[in-house]
Amino acid sequence: MTHGAPAQTDERRSFYEQIDRFSMTPLWEVLDALVTPVPASPCLPHIWRYDDARPHLMKSGELITAQEAVRRVLVLENPGMRGDSCATRSLYAGLQLILPGEVAPAHRHTQSALRFVVEGRGAYTAVDGERRTMEPGDFIITPSWTWHDHGNPSDEPVVWLDGLDIPVVRFLDAGFAENLPDDTQPVSHDEGRSLTRYANNMVPVGYEPESLTSPIFAYPYAQSRATLHDMAGHENPDPAHGYKMQFINPVTGSYAMPTMATFMQLLPTDTHTTAYRSTDGTVYSVVEGSGEVEVGEGDGKVVMAFGPRDHFVVPSWAPSRFRTETDTVLFSFSDRPMQKALGLWREDRGNA
Amino acid sequence: MTHGAPAQTDERRSFYEQIDRFSMTPLWEVLDALVTPVPASPCLPHIWRYDDARPHLMKSGELITAQEAVRRVLVLENPGMRGDSCATRSLYAGLQLILPGEVAPAHRHTQSALRFVVEGRGAYTAVDGERRTMEPGDFIITPSWTWHDHGNPSDEPVVWLDGLDIPVVRFLDAGFAENLPDDTQPVSHDEGRSLTRYANNMVPVGYEPESLTSPIFAYPYAQSRATLHDMAGHENPDPAHGYKMQFINPVTGSYAMPTMATFMQLLPTDTHTTAYRSTDGTVYSVVEGSGEVEVGEGDGKVVMAFGPRDHFVVPSWAPSRFRTETDTVLFSFSDRPMQKALGLWREDRGNA
Amino acid sequence: MTHGAPAQTDERRSFYEQIDRFSMTPLWEVLDALVTPVPASPCLPHIWRYDDARPHLMKSGELITAQEAVRRVLVLENPGMRGDSCATRSLYAGLQLILPGEVAPAHRHTQSALRFVVEGRGAYTAVDGERRTMEPGDFIITPSWTWHDHGNPSDEPVVWLDGLDIPVVRFLDAGFAENLPDDTQPVSHDEGRSLTRYANNMVPVGYEPESLTSPIFAYPYAQSRATLHDMAGHENPDPAHGYKMQFINPVTGSYAMPTMATFMQLLPTDTHTTAYRSTDGTVYSVVEGSGEVEVGEGDGKVVMAFGPRDHFVVPSWAPSRFRTETDTVLFSFSDRPMQKALGLWREDRGNA
Amino acid sequence: MTHGAPAQTDERRSFYEQIDRFSMTPLWEVLDALVTPVPASPCLPHIWRYDDARPHLMKSGELITAQEAVRRVLVLENPGMRGDSCATRSLYAGLQLILPGEVAPAHRHTQSALRFVVEGRGAYTAVDGERRTMEPGDFIITPSWTWHDHGNPSDEPVVWLDGLDIPVVRFLDAGFAENLPDDTQPVSHDEGRSLTRYANNMVPVGYEPESLTSPIFAYPYAQSRATLHDMAGHENPDPAHGYKMQFINPVTGSYAMPTMATFMQLLPTDTHTTAYRSTDGTVYSVVEGSGEVEVGEGDGKVVMAFGPRDHFVVPSWAPSRFRTETDTVLFSFSDRPMQKALGLWREDRGNA
Repeated sequence: MTHGAPAQTDERRSFYEQIDRFSMTPLWEVLDALVTPVPASPCLPHIWRYDDARPHLMKSGELITAQEAVRRVLVLENPGMRGDSCATRSLYAGLQLILPGEVAPAHRHTQSALRFVVEGRGAYTAVDGERRTMEPGDFIITPSWTWHDHGNPSDEPVVWLDGLDIPVVRFLDAGFAENLPDDTQPVSHDEGRSLTRYANNMVPVGYEPESLTSPIFAYPYAQSRATLHDMAGHENPDPAHGYKMQFINPVTGSYAMPTMATFMQLLPTDTHTTAYRSTDGTVYSVVEGSGEVEVGEGDGKVVMAFGPRDHFVVPSWAPSRFRTETDTVLFSFSDRPMQKALGLWREDRGNA
Repeated sequence: MTHGAPAQTDERRSFYEQIDRFSMTPLWEVLDALVTPVPASPCLPHIWRYDDARPHLMKSGELITAQEAVRRVLVLENPGMRGDSCATRSLYAGLQLILPGEVAPAHRHTQSALRFVVEGRGAYTAVDGERRTMEPGDFIITPSWTWHDHGNPSDEPVVWLDGLDIPVVRFLDAGFAENLPDDTQPVSHDEGRSLTRYANNMVPVGYEPESLTSPIFAYPYAQSRATLHDMAGHENPDPAHGYKMQFINPVTGSYAMPTMATFMQLLPTDTHTTAYRSTDGTVYSVVEGSGEVEVGEGDGKVVMAFGPRDHFVVPSWAPSRFRTETDTVLFSFSDRPMQKALGLWREDRGNA
Repeated sequence: MTHGAPAQTDERRSFYEQIDRFSMTPLWEVLDALVTPVPASPCLPHIWRYDDARPHLMKSGELITAQEAVRRVLVLENPGMRGDSCATRSLYAGLQLILPGEVAPAHRHTQSALRFVVEGRGAYTAVDGERRTMEPGDFIITPSWTWHDHGNPSDEPVVWLDGLDIPVVRFLDAGFAENLPDDTQPVSHDEGRSLTRYANNMVPVGYEPESLTSPIFAYPYAQSRATLHDMAGHENPDPAHGYKMQFINPVTGSYAMPTMATFMQLLPTDTHTTAYRSTDGTVYSVVEGSGEVEVGEGDGKVVMAFGPRDHFVVPSWAPSRFRTETDTVLFSFSDRPMQKALGLWREDRGNA
Repeated sequence: MTHGAPAQTDERRSFYEQIDRFSMTPLWEVLDALVTPVPASPCLPHIWRYDDARPHLMKSGELITAQEAVRRVLVLENPGMRGDSCATRSLYAGLQLILPGEVAPAHRHTQSALRFVVEGRGAYTAVDGERRTMEPGDFIITPSWTWHDHGNPSDEPVVWLDGLDIPVVRFLDAGFAENLPDDTQPVSHDEGRSLTRYANNMVPVGYEPESLTSPIFAYPYAQSRATLHDMAGHENPDPAHGYKMQFINPVTGSYAMPTMATFMQLLPTDTHTTAYRSTDGTVYSVVEGSGEVEVGEGDGKVVMAFGPRDHFVVPSWAPSRFRTETDTVLFSFSDRPMQKALGLWREDRGNA
């Protein structure tokens, strides 16, 4: 609210000290900070350029093995919340490197993870006994509490974006984790089983979902890219979004994961989008193309030029506008499913 | 996880400094803290005794008016998270006082609130044009984004427990708020409309829910108390819970609010419950009776004696055991609906 | 459709005979009958006056015992569909009599049944080990595939309306049934357990629905009558419905049964409702009051005067208008939940 | 039930005649027929061989135009229910022929329809402004109350199986229909829009389903066939079903239509399935391969040899066993979604 703090008198100050000893505090001193007219996020718009990040990522490959690190990841920390290991208040993002011949050992945890392949091909992610060979632009899920490990039998370094709901699970004090004794889980299914069984608008007769996460654990870029270009060839773009799709869990129709929404969007050459904002702060990964994004209003406005493999954050309720120089494909993720499940999500397409 | 931090070498330290300038940090230095084998909450078990709180609450009535304070509330701050205005990581709790003749002005916000009446009768909460006169033990809802105000036309002070999802809305950066120009909203419905329309296992023909919150905004203690005693007269108690009911939204069958679960439970005289824990840290309000609750294990074990109108917190995953001296009725609330919606909730009835 | 049948030529007639031998028939000869511009129901408006029915019902009590009959019921057969044992195309209705000292033996079947008490008090319906003593105006459910029996330990005859989805289960070829070796199932719960556990906007902690039917198997008239009168005292009536409520399953928010909707409505003295029609043909039971209902349009219009305990049918899509002489309470049921589940239900409040 | 009818006495017979005049009938005379221990369907197992049907279908092309017939369809009438225009009690099936240059005029109705292409290629079905060119084995939907028309700009006759819920809509008295003034609706979308937008496990951002029917109106055989063969190459068959998939609506995870389930299954050469029965009578279309199916038990057992383009019916609760001579692909449909929505569906994999 915007009432202004009540006057501070000696008597009141003395009272505050007395109740402090009983673990109590006066609401009226913090009400304006707790209940704000619009979202007041510490999250800042920020871009991590791949030209900056890549050399350090490769350097990390010399400093520590995947096995020693368990996961060799450089966390993308929002400059407004350093030390909190988060990209937005509710989302974790990091760049993970796995070198030829390495494995990242098998474990499981209640945190859900998405992997978005940024560079290189031929590494794999294994989930519940099935491996998926990773190609740039692929979106891969390791669902909550499923055994997963990674390996790189190829001859090139492979880098992907990790997106996790680590802050959510921490906030809810609901985190559990276990290691598998062996680094690598046994392969029990041929590659492609989950796509064949669930990704073709058919499911095995009588199939019932066992979790809130999509049983498709890999959404190949070949298909998402073709989808976007096919739309661009036949339909008009949305003024704010261009051609923007959300990945779904086809056995529920909901988002692919219960905590994180994932999107893929095409902004053709010379697109100038209208301003748009929503309450879900969003992490972007540039798949193809270049341009710039303007984020925020007034003095807080920031313009960030981007190119392939760059990553940037648009905070909650900050209006954003995109301008592209070439055909641009953006992957992004946010906490929208949570906000919708709780009745809290809002968007604004007006002249913010 | 529990891998232990990798060795700190000069080279690594130097590397960490370099990437720090690019808002990056090595995951392997924080992984054990982020992904833990079991929940590692800063939340501590704590009890706020009403004998301690009441004099300060009454004192606050002399120091500031309800109007100046907007809401005259002493926040119950968890001792493990002082300064965060929260009782558990995700829940806010406070004791609100409204004196005879006062009004707490009308506003609305995206935060959902519950009111649980602790002392006094005759104040009212108005929601969307309908007033509800408050009696001790009543559970009242002011749903997200509904206009609400409070007043006390009686001749005695009235105190209630406020439970809000303030930390949730802050965590999601999704908070909006507005004030009504007038302190008091107009009354457009006679008292009791929401109970008549929705609380009798019938709804107006063709009714469709418009929100995720129960259209019943008051659950009277007369009914919940009678329900518990009727169960106790005819059924065996649960070893961990005694006779425990959860309030529901009868037009969806789900919890009464999308972010907070609410419970009412009867533990008859001399009940000794078995240990129980779950991932939703819980705030309790003692309605009737007295006894003690043992929370935690090993060195962290705490025993808290309680009596009527005391409030206490049981953190996530901390086992609790109750012993009662007299028939005891407890109201409690937690973030269980969120954890269930995200597939994260767990409980453990074993010998924790 | 309304294309008119194609011309009948010798060649065509000969063709029809040839394909008939192969169990084939030309669509174009029946298309207009199969796909109609508006519903074309064989169901007729009809009233069964209690003054007519009661003597026969009592006579049946002399002719056959409840035990020999299994269920001593006079089926209310729609005059437009004699021999089909149905009141509307999808609903079965009958009046059941149980005399003092009789039992109607225990069995179960996949058909769902509702009982609406018409006359007498003190009989019981037992469902899954709990008995419910029946009072006039009570709405009682015996859910699909639950053991149930009836008995009358009172000293007066008791009559109720049976409403079943017999035609639905027959249409779907999905009926199963079993008898219990004993006439009367053992009583395992005290009376009132289902109301206490589920009817007070609370449920036992952790409760999950096990079926699509309400766990409340009795909705007492004391409560539904009070609800209607409370509404009438504080709200404006709906022009077409007066004060009309639908019974709900509070653990899902849906109708009390998956196949049949149930309603209770109050039309105060001198109410003249506006015309209304919907695609769910409806069976009414007059609980209190008298008046008349006009059903249909043009030449098919019928006016039926009704008084207490009369039963009448309004067919699908036939407009109805009510006029009351005294305060009138009507119970009614239809197949609305099915039509809504299939996306087929329509209503029309216009000047039909 | 199986109580046997009560004795017929003169007094009873006289009573039945008396109540008959009041549109009442004694339940005890029909109870055994209404409430049966297991489903008692009039539906018979039957096969319509394409060798028999095709010449008549082609002959019908000479006798009547598509325009005059509105839909030139030979209805496959179950021999156990001649005159009812149904293949099972709840399902309509027919073979539709459209000749080069013909159009089947645009209309809409509340009945849902599926089209399964049996012979020929190059005809189209248009739904809501988008045409879909039909290939053998394609499964196409014309959802309830959507404008649709068919045309054949190719130079060969095209035949498809029509499956409709005509009996359901008739049973519920909920049918509406309209003609478009023009035979052909305008094309407003390029072909393929629905597949691109909804069939690739992505949907346009913010998309919300507007109906209960899949927004994918065409499921190409190229994909369903490849899916089945990929499964057969990597997984073990189900003993009763071989490799059997159900088509889904990816924006809800449910069946593709609210009233009818659709399946596609591969039974490799020399498959002998175990007996299986369920309460949803099923219509099959043989896409590829040949073999025989044994339906029923004891004296009612029937063995039907089948080859490509044959159609056959397996009634509710009749056990079926398949034996194949070559790789066999079967399309089938039933009323399973309705039975599941109502809590009535059962299956039995035992030694029926």
